[in-house]
Amino acid sequence: MLNIGMIGAGRIGRVHAESITCHVKDARVKAIADPSFTDEGRQWARSLGIDEVYTDFHEILKDASIDAVLICSSTDTHADIAIEAIHAHKHIFCEKPVSQSLSKIRETANALSHSDVKFQVGFNRRFDHNFEAVRSAIDAGKIGDIHIVKITSRDPDAPPLEYARVSGGLFLDMTIHDFDMARYLTGSDVVEVSAYGAALVEPALRDIGDIDTAIITLKLANGALAVIDNSRRAAYGYDQRAEVFGSKGQVSIANDSASSAVISTVEGITGEKPLYFFLERYMASFSREISLFVQAIVKDTEVPVNINDGLQPVLIAKAAQRSLMEHRPVMISEIDY
Amino acid sequence: MLNIGMIGAGRIGRVHAESITCHVKDARVKAIADPSFTDEGRQWARSLGIDEVYTDFHEILKDASIDAVLICSSTDTHADIAIEAIHAHKHIFCEKPVSQSLSKIRETANALSHSDVKFQVGFNRRFDHNFEAVRSAIDAGKIGDIHIVKITSRDPDAPPLEYARVSGGLFLDMTIHDFDMARYLTGSDVVEVSAYGAALVEPALRDIGDIDTAIITLKLANGALAVIDNSRRAAYGYDQRAEVFGSKGQVSIANDSASSAVISTVEGITGEKPLYFFLERYMASFSREISLFVQAIVKDTEVPVNINDGLQPVLIAKAAQRSLMEHRPVMISEIDY
Amino acid sequence: MLNIGMIGAGRIGRVHAESITCHVKDARVKAIADPSFTDEGRQWARSLGIDEVYTDFHEILKDASIDAVLICSSTDTHADIAIEAIHAHKHIFCEKPVSQSLSKIRETANALSHSDVKFQVGFNRRFDHNFEAVRSAIDAGKIGDIHIVKITSRDPDAPPLEYARVSGGLFLDMTIHDFDMARYLTGSDVVEVSAYGAALVEPALRDIGDIDTAIITLKLANGALAVIDNSRRAAYGYDQRAEVFGSKGQVSIANDSASSAVISTVEGITGEKPLYFFLERYMASFSREISLFVQAIVKDTEVPVNINDGLQPVLIAKAAQRSLMEHRPVMISEIDY
Amino acid sequence: MLNIGMIGAGRIGRVHAESITCHVKDARVKAIADPSFTDEGRQWARSLGIDEVYTDFHEILKDASIDAVLICSSTDTHADIAIEAIHAHKHIFCEKPVSQSLSKIRETANALSHSDVKFQVGFNRRFDHNFEAVRSAIDAGKIGDIHIVKITSRDPDAPPLEYARVSGGLFLDMTIHDFDMARYLTGSDVVEVSAYGAALVEPALRDIGDIDTAIITLKLANGALAVIDNSRRAAYGYDQRAEVFGSKGQVSIANDSASSAVISTVEGITGEKPLYFFLERYMASFSREISLFVQAIVKDTEVPVNINDGLQPVLIAKAAQRSLMEHRPVMISEIDY
Repeated sequence: MLNIGMIGAGRIGRVHAESITCHVKDARVKAIADPSFTDEGRQWARSLGIDEVYTDFHEILKDASIDAVLICSSTDTHADIAIEAIHAHKHIFCEKPVSQSLSKIRETANALSHSDVKFQVGFNRRFDHNFEAVRSAIDAGKIGDIHIVKITSRDPDAPPLEYARVSGGLFLDMTIHDFDMARYLTGSDVVEVSAYGAALVEPALRDIGDIDTAIITLKLANGALAVIDNSRRAAYGYDQRAEVFGSKGQVSIANDSASSAVISTVEGITGEKPLYFFLERYMASFSREISLFVQAIVKDTEVPVNINDGLQPVLIAKAAQRSLMEHRPVMISEIDY
Repeated sequence: MLNIGMIGAGRIGRVHAESITCHVKDARVKAIADPSFTDEGRQWARSLGIDEVYTDFHEILKDASIDAVLICSSTDTHADIAIEAIHAHKHIFCEKPVSQSLSKIRETANALSHSDVKFQVGFNRRFDHNFEAVRSAIDAGKIGDIHIVKITSRDPDAPPLEYARVSGGLFLDMTIHDFDMARYLTGSDVVEVSAYGAALVEPALRDIGDIDTAIITLKLANGALAVIDNSRRAAYGYDQRAEVFGSKGQVSIANDSASSAVISTVEGITGEKPLYFFLERYMASFSREISLFVQAIVKDTEVPVNINDGLQPVLIAKAAQRSLMEHRPVMISEIDY
Repeated sequence: MLNIGMIGAGRIGRVHAESITCHVKDARVKAIADPSFTDEGRQWARSLGIDEVYTDFHEILKDASIDAVLICSSTDTHADIAIEAIHAHKHIFCEKPVSQSLSKIRETANALSHSDVKFQVGFNRRFDHNFEAVRSAIDAGKIGDIHIVKITSRDPDAPPLEYARVSGGLFLDMTIHDFDMARYLTGSDVVEVSAYGAALVEPALRDIGDIDTAIITLKLANGALAVIDNSRRAAYGYDQRAEVFGSKGQVSIANDSASSAVISTVEGITGEKPLYFFLERYMASFSREISLFVQAIVKDTEVPVNINDGLQPVLIAKAAQRSLMEHRPVMISEIDY
Repeated sequence: MLNIGMIGAGRIGRVHAESITCHVKDARVKAIADPSFTDEGRQWARSLGIDEVYTDFHEILKDASIDAVLICSSTDTHADIAIEAIHAHKHIFCEKPVSQSLSKIRETANALSHSDVKFQVGFNRRFDHNFEAVRSAIDAGKIGDIHIVKITSRDPDAPPLEYARVSGGLFLDMTIHDFDMARYLTGSDVVEVSAYGAALVEPALRDIGDIDTAIITLKLANGALAVIDNSRRAAYGYDQRAEVFGSKGQVSIANDSASSAVISTVEGITGEKPLYFFLERYMASFSREISLFVQAIVKDTEVPVNINDGLQPVLIAKAAQRSLMEHRPVMISEIDY
């Protein structure tokens, strides 16, 4: 039974803690640290049977009985905490992105290279039933060599401007999942990016140099082409689809909805909208990624999403930003790392 | 080039005449007879290049150059005209039903048995792309032995009461197509019928002993069970579906609509309703049935829907009527023929 | 916090215990009783934090701190245990069917009528996301007055003959869920049944007087007609669909599958089969029914599936059996209760 | 009754002639000219009732009774014939593209500007039921302001290399329809193009400077972004889809197939592949475009696809070619016209 320490008890931290308690074998949450624990938070922890609740995550790193930590704190703290945890010999599950700063990722990677700590990045969509089915079909050779990848990723609604201001921009905040997905589905690295974007949903984003609508074309190392389309607001809900086309055919996935009910009336034939909230849509993927992290430790195997998988989407996002600014295709190799 | 004489220039007669002109190889319409030809009708005939227009169908039977007739007159005249046409050695395509009277069908069958005239009944749905695909899957052994057949047949709207009064009732007027479909899809005869019905759409039908909603269970000679559900009014349009379930799986068909467009908004995910009008929905089947009739003559092969195929659905309809009245399952063999 | 005692720790008992631990608010499993507890079973109980493990369910009934029991023992023991639990003033969630014996159900109902114990029957499908969506659409008036109900319920594979021998037959063992569904979806009682059946999947069933394929027509008190089709073996998996057609339109549901992935190749356009296993298909409904049971106790409201809801499907099943044997429609009122 | 002269009796010319005969009101084919008429061709013409068959199209231009011509000859002759026809005061339906040469298009446009001849370009997909439904939804305001357009256009198989050699390349030969579609669906002009391409299907194309796989991003005058993905070979058939996403939602279309039949077996749930052949897929659009051309003449209204609609896709294709070669986004205004 692995002892896990949670660092960060915000929304995603709680999701993981609840997953571990109910769905993850061979692991339990021993302690949770959050700098701003409230009474409500402490009560929530107790309801899960977690008695050790700290405001300082160092308490967790000091506890020799803790095997692994889940870093679910704010993005800007991920890398520093990770480096401390590496030095404390704790295995690490780190929420995405590892950092928006390439130098911070490099520091983390360096620290890892001198340790035998397992480090998994929280690209949960890789463990979603639909996206996994796409990858399985590809791995099984069903579609042959990959020629074209299409990823649609649209949020149900735009975040507040204050959030956008500190988010790092659309590519680092939102598209980063899609950059990872392009790599995951194809098993190939991205070599070049060409980005188009506009602020069509929320024109005020222009003033802070951000966009809400984008089409990004990727050239992959294996010769395939990929295209991602993003919007910050899909009136019908959270739109998460992909199709991969190859020499033998295509595999595609549709959105999930709350039920398969279809109502036929004089107005038309109407089905349900996609699940609106990302936590609802991807809930099962969160427990699955943690289960695989725990299994990688227990069985001493490779983690499914490593530090390079954490680095590459950030590099792609930086290249996409430069492409948008300089109005030209940008090679990943142009980005200093 | 086969010379065809049309008997009856109503709605379905015109459909056939236009099909022959545009879509049927090896045949042309040489003459048309209709007791109530108007100027508009004559003009329509001319626009198709048909110069011989009669009010008396005997003109057609007398024309030695005419090889075949299409009987598209009112139902009560089908059998008598057919018998005359048999004596005139014309091949016959007869709209369904051959007759609502079993004795008239028997007379026709007797006349046929002493001639070498081809006689095809107009169960056009057998030649619809969807229903043909079901039959093809069955013939290809895709679903194994047939266990369960389900046919949904619902009209977009109820006919006027005056029509209902002379229609012969739901089973003879509407379900007769579904009785034929059960036989066509399974390649097996019906041995027993159990019918439930109600007047839920148009309560006034009760007064004339008719119904508008029905569920009819059929026992087939091959051991399979079939169920048909009917309604005279589907708010969303003409609903024409079937599924056949067997030892190896199932084949099912959905409705056709005017386009595949799906609109996703905050209201839901909405596709188009089924095609509303039976002529639009089944248009291609009409030219296909006539083409096959012409080919059967030209190549001297069996017609795809023979006089027994015309008889059986009428027998089943009569048994269904008795089942409904006597509130019990009725064997087809109980119906005097 | 409600204290629950589990009676029976077989497959479904464990599902409920795990649900309560992870998904049901305001309740915990305090004790479990099963006459044949093994070491493995005791270990499983401990893993859920349940320390009180008995072989005799009377230990649970004697525990004054226990508010409610879940009866998940073998069907033939349900009613007797329920009656004892009523006398012990425990609220009861009883797996379906309450009993295959109508007199046992009557005894249970009598005992209940003299107590204020809550009694809920485990017709879990009522709490499935798809079936709930059908009911919601109906309740919202989307389809108007109900005219036709169609329920398809096909198992992925036939049970062993030994099981069939003691199962009570297809109608009591399998169709009983569909009989309940017809009542749930329409909010109306069944007044008459007409059943057709055959042993097409497993001919040996004939020797024990059972069937594996059936079409059952129901007449409902509100005038609507319903039809259920069953098979013990659908090659493509567990087939659980329904459609309800009414004066304003139709609502229908499709099967759930493991992913929405569709693979397009030269062979065709292929999606995933339905979820194969009923526990996987209906997992969420099990925790939902227990949550609602707990809420009914906590808030002292009506349970969503009461003793009459437990009785009616058994009556319908008995009528269906008689209809099949006597080859005629049978009124529910003909069944002695 | 409009008299039409057909210039060119190849595949598409015959499609139009047959359409006019069977489906186009107010028009008839009076004469056909083709430089390489065979006996078979003459016989085909006679079967449609067309007696005037020429090898020299000037015979048609000289015939004062002919109101309009359909130019269906080889692409390199379109513009020159069109200019002669303009001088002969014939209304013109010209197959796409008007020319691969911008100067030829300019000459044609100039000739038109000094005449009152109607000139329609054969972008038939605008008149396809699915694409029209997308446009209708947009026009009805269903999806609000357009943000993202996605067009998938994949051929079932690559043409022979000899064809590719003279085709003008993927963008002029194949994508030109999609460039037109982006303009048609959005009602907006394209201002910039960024193209990625590769020869993944047929590597030999590289030697002749062509590609078979492409992703092309378009920036539209109204601020929307569009992306087209092309392949010369989709194993599962002709893939013709589009989706348009806007401030209020999305409209999308799927492929058409021969039937709606879905077969469920142990192998999966399998539907039919898309219609394979473009003539089958788009047949109805061909008669519809000619009907609208005829109506524009008869009623003296604007043609639905004018000379500028013929020009713009050629400009976009040229810009796409330059983008691919120079590896940068290219403005339409950079293309000399």
